Amino acid sequence: MAIRQYAVIGLGRFGISVAQRLHEAGQEVLGIDINEERVEEAESFVTHAVIADTTEEDALKSVGISNFDRVIVAIGNDMQSSILTVLLLKELGVKKVIAKALDKHHGKVLEKVGADWVIYPEKDMGERVANQLLSPNMLNYIELSHEYNIEEILIPESMAENSLRELDIRAKYNVSAIAVVRDGNVIISPSPNEIIHKGDMLVLIGSREDLSDFSNL
Amino acid sequence: MAIRQYAVIGLGRFGISVAQRLHEAGQEVLGIDINEERVEEAESFVTHAVIADTTEEDALKSVGISNFDRVIVAIGNDMQSSILTVLLLKELGVKKVIAKALDKHHGKVLEKVGADWVIYPEKDMGERVANQLLSPNMLNYIELSHEYNIEEILIPESMAENSLRELDIRAKYNVSAIAVVRDGNVIISPSPNEIIHKGDMLVLIGSREDLSDFSNL
Amino acid sequence: MAIRQYAVIGLGRFGISVAQRLHEAGQEVLGIDINEERVEEAESFVTHAVIADTTEEDALKSVGISNFDRVIVAIGNDMQSSILTVLLLKELGVKKVIAKALDKHHGKVLEKVGADWVIYPEKDMGERVANQLLSPNMLNYIELSHEYNIEEILIPESMAENSLRELDIRAKYNVSAIAVVRDGNVIISPSPNEIIHKGDMLVLIGSREDLSDFSNL
Amino acid sequence: MAIRQYAVIGLGRFGISVAQRLHEAGQEVLGIDINEERVEEAESFVTHAVIADTTEEDALKSVGISNFDRVIVAIGNDMQSSILTVLLLKELGVKKVIAKALDKHHGKVLEKVGADWVIYPEKDMGERVANQLLSPNMLNYIELSHEYNIEEILIPESMAENSLRELDIRAKYNVSAIAVVRDGNVIISPSPNEIIHKGDMLVLIGSREDLSDFSNL
Amino acid sequence: MAIRQYAVIGLGRFGISVAQRLHEAGQEVLGIDINEERVEEAESFVTHAVIADTTEEDALKSVGISNFDRVIVAIGNDMQSSILTVLLLKELGVKKVIAKALDKHHGKVLEKVGADWVIYPEKDMGERVANQLLSPNMLNYIELSHEYNIEEILIPESMAENSLRELDIRAKYNVSAIAVVRDGNVIISPSPNEIIHKGDMLVLIGSREDLSDFSNL
Amino acid sequence: MAIRQYAVIGLGRFGISVAQRLHEAGQEVLGIDINEERVEEAESFVTHAVIADTTEEDALKSVGISNFDRVIVAIGNDMQSSILTVLLLKELGVKKVIAKALDKHHGKVLEKVGADWVIYPEKDMGERVANQLLSPNMLNYIELSHEYNIEEILIPESMAENSLRELDIRAKYNVSAIAVVRDGNVIISPSPNEIIHKGDMLVLIGSREDLSDFSNL
Amino acid sequence: MAIRQYAVIGLGRFGISVAQRLHEAGQEVLGIDINEERVEEAESFVTHAVIADTTEEDALKSVGISNFDRVIVAIGNDMQSSILTVLLLKELGVKKVIAKALDKHHGKVLEKVGADWVIYPEKDMGERVANQLLSPNMLNYIELSHEYNIEEILIPESMAENSLRELDIRAKYNVSAIAVVRDGNVIISPSPNEIIHKGDMLVLIGSREDLSDFSNL
Amino acid sequence: MAIRQYAVIGLGRFGISVAQRLHEAGQEVLGIDINEERVEEAESFVTHAVIADTTEEDALKSVGISNFDRVIVAIGNDMQSSILTVLLLKELGVKKVIAKALDKHHGKVLEKVGADWVIYPEKDMGERVANQLLSPNMLNYIELSHEYNIEEILIPESMAENSLRELDIRAKYNVSAIAVVRDGNVIISPSPNEIIHKGDMLVLIGSREDLSDFSNL
Repeated sequence: MAIRQYAVIGLGRFGISVAQRLHEAGQEVLGIDINEERVEEAESFVTHAVIADTTEEDALKSVGISNFDRVIVAIGNDMQSSILTVLLLKELGVKKVIAKALDKHHGKVLEKVGADWVIYPEKDMGERVANQLLSPNMLNYIELSHEYNIEEILIPESMAENSLRELDIRAKYNVSAIAVVRDGNVIISPSPNEIIHKGDMLVLIGSREDLSDFSNL
Repeated sequence: MAIRQYAVIGLGRFGISVAQRLHEAGQEVLGIDINEERVEEAESFVTHAVIADTTEEDALKSVGISNFDRVIVAIGNDMQSSILTVLLLKELGVKKVIAKALDKHHGKVLEKVGADWVIYPEKDMGERVANQLLSPNMLNYIELSHEYNIEEILIPESMAENSLRELDIRAKYNVSAIAVVRDGNVIISPSPNEIIHKGDMLVLIGSREDLSDFSNL
Repeated sequence: MAIRQYAVIGLGRFGISVAQRLHEAGQEVLGIDINEERVEEAESFVTHAVIADTTEEDALKSVGISNFDRVIVAIGNDMQSSILTVLLLKELGVKKVIAKALDKHHGKVLEKVGADWVIYPEKDMGERVANQLLSPNMLNYIELSHEYNIEEILIPESMAENSLRELDIRAKYNVSAIAVVRDGNVIISPSPNEIIHKGDMLVLIGSREDLSDFSNL
Repeated sequence: MAIRQYAVIGLGRFGISVAQRLHEAGQEVLGIDINEERVEEAESFVTHAVIADTTEEDALKSVGISNFDRVIVAIGNDMQSSILTVLLLKELGVKKVIAKALDKHHGKVLEKVGADWVIYPEKDMGERVANQLLSPNMLNYIELSHEYNIEEILIPESMAENSLRELDIRAKYNVSAIAVVRDGNVIISPSPNEIIHKGDMLVLIGSREDLSDFSNL
Repeated sequence: MAIRQYAVIGLGRFGISVAQRLHEAGQEVLGIDINEERVEEAESFVTHAVIADTTEEDALKSVGISNFDRVIVAIGNDMQSSILTVLLLKELGVKKVIAKALDKHHGKVLEKVGADWVIYPEKDMGERVANQLLSPNMLNYIELSHEYNIEEILIPESMAENSLRELDIRAKYNVSAIAVVRDGNVIISPSPNEIIHKGDMLVLIGSREDLSDFSNL
Repeated sequence: MAIRQYAVIGLGRFGISVAQRLHEAGQEVLGIDINEERVEEAESFVTHAVIADTTEEDALKSVGISNFDRVIVAIGNDMQSSILTVLLLKELGVKKVIAKALDKHHGKVLEKVGADWVIYPEKDMGERVANQLLSPNMLNYIELSHEYNIEEILIPESMAENSLRELDIRAKYNVSAIAVVRDGNVIISPSPNEIIHKGDMLVLIGSREDLSDFSNL
Repeated sequence: MAIRQYAVIGLGRFGISVAQRLHEAGQEVLGIDINEERVEEAESFVTHAVIADTTEEDALKSVGISNFDRVIVAIGNDMQSSILTVLLLKELGVKKVIAKALDKHHGKVLEKVGADWVIYPEKDMGERVANQLLSPNMLNYIELSHEYNIEEILIPESMAENSLRELDIRAKYNVSAIAVVRDGNVIISPSPNEIIHKGDMLVLIGSREDLSDFSNL
Repeated sequence: MAIRQYAVIGLGRFGISVAQRLHEAGQEVLGIDINEERVEEAESFVTHAVIADTTEEDALKSVGISNFDRVIVAIGNDMQSSILTVLLLKELGVKKVIAKALDKHHGKVLEKVGADWVIYPEKDMGERVANQLLSPNMLNYIELSHEYNIEEILIPESMAENSLRELDIRAKYNVSAIAVVRDGNVIISPSPNEIIHKGDMLVLIGSREDLSDFSNL
């Protein structure tokens, strides 16, 4: 994997999580926050951490921000600071600025001042949680289109100890099995003779409605 | 889809997002917050919204909380209220309580007082964003195991206008194509003769490392 | 008396009183508070006093909290800190954690996160004061059961200068005299010839109702 | 029991506890607080509850305070209000004023302005808790003098299933058994043949040192 | 003069001054502020005044903001509100939005979100005051270019009672007299025979340097 | 230009703007503010900057305030400090004190305590902005009397490419052309043969009404 | 005594005291304060009391302030309000304005804006208390000049039971007795035969030094 | 004059005034305040000034408070601190404690905890001001009894240039002239031939009513 230079501005729970994951993946990560305490707490999760007010051009220059490949603006609740920071980052020539928005209007302003990617973590995560509640046996999913999903679904107990052929999922539920996940291992393109056990997860592709029917069995 | 009774306690950005998605899916959703303004703003996203202090047993009883199938405690920053609320919900016999935790210790306390599912939205979302940054052409993914992922990846421009057979992804990158997403439509189990166009997304299954190599082309 | 290692967390009026009494009894007592001023004030009442935020695991480890026999969590009004502190203490292996609760629900959470003994000082003390008001001549008491008490009662002036035999308390009031307290001295199992003087206290055992009648003479 | 008129000023945890106990004992109790919310919460624990600023003479007169037999001033942390309230109560002719003090100096001022009984709940309760920690098998106690106590002590397991005569407590430990408490029942002046069972509590009278030795067996 | 529909958002000293001048000139002016008190104070200076939070789309719609020809955003110190308000105004189709900026960066953001004219009142006024201090006899001026000004200058006492011909300003100071202002009256293109009196103001055109020399006589 | 000693008290946006303009004009400028941060920010715009509380006589003396030719009191919102500062400045013998007033009454008090020139920046700037809105093609103006103005006006497109003689402005609009401003250059007393181009500004003298008619063409 | 119309603005302890004394003397007194609670408390001490912000011209007009003979501005700590109030009172034509100053500079500003009499209650009262401490037997005094006082002095016990002639105060101490005050009665120009008793006060006139010597006997 | 040791606790305007007057009279004065800034400001008015919290016994001991002859407790608004300070001062053996009270109840508590002299500066000063307003020509006065005053009164202009014999004040107004004050000099027991001039003050003794009549001439 290519090693890139990341800066994460705003070291709240969301920012720390981004920074930590990047850092664990071997990337160079600079953590920046205006609050000393948070910078100290972040030090073990990043390559380097500094205290700086990113609404001040000089502060951004002094950390050499224009050398960073990607800057994530994860400022918590201070909309104004988030907007000014994005504006300055783009003026200083940062290629890719990812910014967290609090709501739709904040998101629009961020786009207008140049953010390359605007994210809404609370909104997105809320939807993911809701989707999992709606399909209680579903553990994970990708929305491919308005109609189709891939979903990882815990098999109903009633299906256990049958082969995929016996279950005949495609015919009965109109969804296709891509893989079986068992005890942390993955069987890709499982054979029709594969016996499904209690606790197995099926990775299925199909229409959302059909998958929901299957998940609610 | 079965219609269930949900209550969402705490109508901040995360709570609203959960409630709104559930409501859109046709579920009955009661929104609860201690703050009048937030309750008013939530009214268009839920079946019913009430002002209540959920750390008081009487308040929970008066909305008949024990009749709800699932209660999501999405209280923002007030750890104490979140803990007391979960305690009371379980004492009043709510079957399934889902609670948002601010950090590891908060999460542990929530489990001790009976939360059935503890979630860490900021942490999870931060990891998702980091993963997408690490694989810039990847749009979506499911972690199947510590080793295997399914990922939806924008094809590199150099691959455009070739058939899947010509690309021979399996041999070259050790990953399998499950589907092609084109202009919002999904081609499941695409034929080897399918020509891939610029802007197409491939849904691939494989080891994380192989997928990352492909995504970073 | 065995010398044990005690830690008292929270050096408000209640915590200081616990610490001081233990210290006077020759025990080793570590006082801990997040507030510098309180730690300084406590220094003359304990073996050692330190400033620490006990909701942080590292802080607890750095004082070697797991070596303490008993830890009293006397945190004043911050319910959340009290809960997290108890959780951490039990995770770090402290054998016996005594915790002060503000109210019933707080008490329940403390039990759930592992507190070995939950106390309600204001409530208990309030009841003791009320009991003494109800029996104005009663100076002290033990509740033995729902029915029986031992009470130390100032004798009515009318009884003075009679022998216990003459007073015949058992027959007249259905309570037994265990001891006489006179000028700070105790006469255990007093002889029936003992003359009772003005200002003497009788230690009596009997039903609460009978004792109350005697006390209200 | 005689029915008296009590007023409790200051309806925090301590004040509520006093008021509730008196009320349960069938007394007439007026609860007074300057804070509306607290007055409302107190209503179910007292005969009557009113909002009033007791540092204002007119407020005290309007509730007819001089008709009350005893007034408990349980004001929490506002030393000044507590002092002025006691001053006014005595000027208005209240016979017996009981006042909670925060510390030694506060207590002295309360006495100077006329308080009949000054109590230090946090300090007293802290000492009680410390005493119980020092004698882990001791459940309750009365201090009769500087030397002698009565204590209710859980018997050591090694003593179980012996008669009192066999145990010969008086000779071996220099303390006398006044009563046995078993399963919530009390055996006063138990016979020497009484067999002591596991879980029994002995009520003993003796010197503090001897009792502590017994309690730490 | 054409009658237009103006809205002034933010009724602080600057906003009120704009609104009042427009209103005096016979224009229709709607005053808007989030603060009730300020709206009340503004009522005598505008056609109509309403309380509204202009960061909320519905509030702007309910006053029919898209019908206004020009909207002046004079919000005092809340940079965030000013930005969101301008964004919403442009989204709702307001033709011309004039916005007050606190500093350079704020000004840039305002332009990015669509402000048609950004003004910096404190900065501009500060410069005007400084210019007048630099030329103490100068009462007013227009900057025509980087080199040329028109300035209204109080004549030095030494010049009084001479005709313009005698003074020969053009030859001596290299500036031209456009007008004479005397006792509130204006003599345009004054005759060379015009006698200049003490207290007259000359309106001169010339290079800034020459005018400054004249003004500092 | 004579070099004078200026002091600017209060380094907010208005004060900084005054100070910076004076400093750029080569004057000696001392910046004074009670706030350390603002003094630091001002340092690059003034000759010297100090932290001082100008309501204290000793502070003013220690900077040798009586040696300054002119002192500008640009204190933001603290009316009381502004009044006391002006009083002290005059008592200490400062010749010319210029003071910013928040409103009419503040202005009167400033005059009573000795301010030589009272300015109302927000009010004045508000009026300038309103005037420019009223005459959208007008870029700048001087009010010569209640009746006459000089205004710099962008010519209507319909007039472009005509000579001044052809346009015959004086006859048609009753205003006189003093100068033409084209691409940042100024043509004083332009010849009647001068061809006017699109984008030219005419500097005109005339009655306000006539100028407004011309400006609104 | 003539009945006049007084207004007292600012109903703190000082203002109330002024108002109450005037009211007791049968004068018409209007009490004004911005604070509702204080106005209510003042109602029993004045003819009429109103809530008003006296820094607003309309508020002063609406109580018809210009009809009052004398207005006392007793505003506590808000220097700015006190200054603006005095300014407005004089502008509205109040004949005599008496204003309380916090310190010397405040006093000067009050004089500049028109206060007819500026008083410094804390300073004056402090001096009176100090003077009484310096002459412990002196109860009261008038300073007639820099040299002479009249003082009311408690006689030393050693003088008791002598006639004024025997004491021969004039010769011995160089001060003259004007009156004797005994048991609340006054003997003016006492006869030389008057016997002075223990507890009598002599009213003496003389130089401050001589009186101090006498007072310190 | 005897030199004594004074301590003044609380260096607000009143305390400073007491301290300064005592210090000017050559006394040794220790100034004490909890606030550093006030202590610094007081240093030029006292012999010595220290920062101390006088509600702490150790602080009072460390300045050797029991060696002071008189301690003035001039604490501004903190009733509780004033009460505790007086209590401690008396416990530490200070002979004479003078304390400023905010109101009647505060004054009573101060007396109960041992204050030797309680003063009410605002109230007393308010009354003095009111008295001077009631008698506009009266400059100073002593109340000798409920009936009699000595007052220093500016003579009415109509009386000027007459001898005391001609004025015959005693007969006409029933008051006696004790002294004449003229240009800062005092004529004690003036001769009947003394001519009274415009601007002279008469020092008169008489009943309050008669003096008031004279003063209102």
